[in-house]
Amino acid sequence: VFYSKERILPLIDHGRIIGLMEEAFVMYSKKEAIVPSFGSLTFDDPKGETHIKYGYVQKLDSFVVKVASSFPSNNYLGVSSSQGVLLLFCRKTGQLKSILHDEGYLTDVRTAAAGAVVAKYLAPKRIKAVGIVGTGTQAYFQLNLLKEVVFFDHVIVWGRSQDSLERYVQHIKDPSLTVETTKDLCMLQESCNLIVTTTPSSIPLISNIQKGTHITAVGADNFGKVEIDPEIFRIADLVVCDSKKQCFAVGDCARALATGNLEPEKVRELGEIIQNPSWGRQSEEEITIADLTGLAVQDIMIAAELTNQLQKRNNEQVIHTFN
Amino acid sequence: VFYSKERILPLIDHGRIIGLMEEAFVMYSKKEAIVPSFGSLTFDDPKGETHIKYGYVQKLDSFVVKVASSFPSNNYLGVSSSQGVLLLFCRKTGQLKSILHDEGYLTDVRTAAAGAVVAKYLAPKRIKAVGIVGTGTQAYFQLNLLKEVVFFDHVIVWGRSQDSLERYVQHIKDPSLTVETTKDLCMLQESCNLIVTTTPSSIPLISNIQKGTHITAVGADNFGKVEIDPEIFRIADLVVCDSKKQCFAVGDCARALATGNLEPEKVRELGEIIQNPSWGRQSEEEITIADLTGLAVQDIMIAAELTNQLQKRNNEQVIHTFN
Repeated sequence: VFYSKERILPLIDHGRIIGLMEEAFVMYSKKEAIVPSFGSLTFDDPKGETHIKYGYVQKLDSFVVKVASSFPSNNYLGVSSSQGVLLLFCRKTGQLKSILHDEGYLTDVRTAAAGAVVAKYLAPKRIKAVGIVGTGTQAYFQLNLLKEVVFFDHVIVWGRSQDSLERYVQHIKDPSLTVETTKDLCMLQESCNLIVTTTPSSIPLISNIQKGTHITAVGADNFGKVEIDPEIFRIADLVVCDSKKQCFAVGDCARALATGNLEPEKVRELGEIIQNPSWGRQSEEEITIADLTGLAVQDIMIAAELTNQLQKRNNEQVIHTFN
Repeated sequence: VFYSKERILPLIDHGRIIGLMEEAFVMYSKKEAIVPSFGSLTFDDPKGETHIKYGYVQKLDSFVVKVASSFPSNNYLGVSSSQGVLLLFCRKTGQLKSILHDEGYLTDVRTAAAGAVVAKYLAPKRIKAVGIVGTGTQAYFQLNLLKEVVFFDHVIVWGRSQDSLERYVQHIKDPSLTVETTKDLCMLQESCNLIVTTTPSSIPLISNIQKGTHITAVGADNFGKVEIDPEIFRIADLVVCDSKKQCFAVGDCARALATGNLEPEKVRELGEIIQNPSWGRQSEEEITIADLTGLAVQDIMIAAELTNQLQKRNNEQVIHTFN
């Protein structure tokens, strides 16, 4: 019933997870997923944040509870800043079926997979350069999963410290990519037409972009967090979010609504775009924004898929032993 | 890191858990516990309910997330209707420290321990008979833990079916107790001056009690549930609850407030009574009510205590292996 990260990692197939996330967002927007508002705990010493997300989808016989934490100061201890665990229970009896002790890995990968889904439907056809804002774990995952769905060969990464920028570049190890580092956001905004923001910022970072740019904002997932200047929403041709309910309450869309820069009618859910791809980007000139806050339905789908694979593998091992 | 129910059960000491719960309620009322509103999921086919409770206390370096479910139809499958798991995490890094796969046992025992704490401070001195309303798992636990704090030799148990009443009596196995069964609530209300209600009822069951009675209501822990006629709150001399915030939102107090039968000022928190025992029962004539909805702080304290014991035991075994 208990699976460690070492057992889970070999089963991760990026392409398959991106497909699973498309399915998840469609189910969410079709209201086939029951996902109440998430819970959270915040900590001050050291700074940290824990999200508790839970729910179920009608087509599966299980429900999922996920605990995922982010403690940035873990980096100084040589411990991953992401931590967490997913629990899958039977929806008919409440019995625990599996514990995926992913230490936050599945949250990282499903969040990045959502970014890839967004890029598939909203990125401009010709990507001049990908701009990655932030140098943490998610900055790395986003780039890795983007490669599955769009073509690019130039990346510009923005960070606050030279150390973290160098660490990021070392992580990439992809000979097909030129990775440029900068501490100057203006340079990134001028050169990139696909920008992904991955920071825990509480002040807007992206404030001026070129025509034809797509921005995916994944960092601002709770109260007080924001990465995109609300004014940008005013000039955007299309705004997409994972969940209207959640994004209207927290993060970038919430801030843009509160400051009068965004009309709720302008916003589409990602699941709607996947069902109607023609609602996506209309031309290479449009400015599009996707605001992702992370949905329990993503955790449900990934937990169910991996539990299925892990338990099948266990059974095969048992059969093998009998032969 | 993973402990099964079999590993947990031998460490359960009822007296110790009752003491721990007193400490938990005091911390809660002194606002030394951070416990956000709990999350819940409800299921229809079959009927079931899951509570997700989480939080931390200032004096401990950990936070706890608990998932506890109740699926009454499990009884037909030979599976416990209570199910669940407690997770303890480090509050400095977010790392998972222990999984207590208690299958709902710790929720049952801490809920009953809260009933015992209530009886210690509010029960009349001379108990004519204990009345237990309901025949499920909690009905059994409540009786067992009451024995730790008050003296009685006669029990009357009410249930809807003869089968479940007989099963309950067989479970008790205590030669010092006379256990009488009834399907007539009036008889129970007339004969008992310490009544504990443990049902998932959505209509009031207790509607008429004698002077000098104490009622502990533990069943109504979510929206739509109620066990005590709101009129009884009007004649009560003292109303105590585990959490004003929670009880004013769900359960018996909430119903009594909504129907104008209870003034919020009349209600004390259990943690306040423990700190000021003189605020408790004033005479053998008073009618007192305690409304318990279950607090995450109880789960935090029990999870921390047991993790501590289990890890100490592991270390001892390791040392033993080295000798």
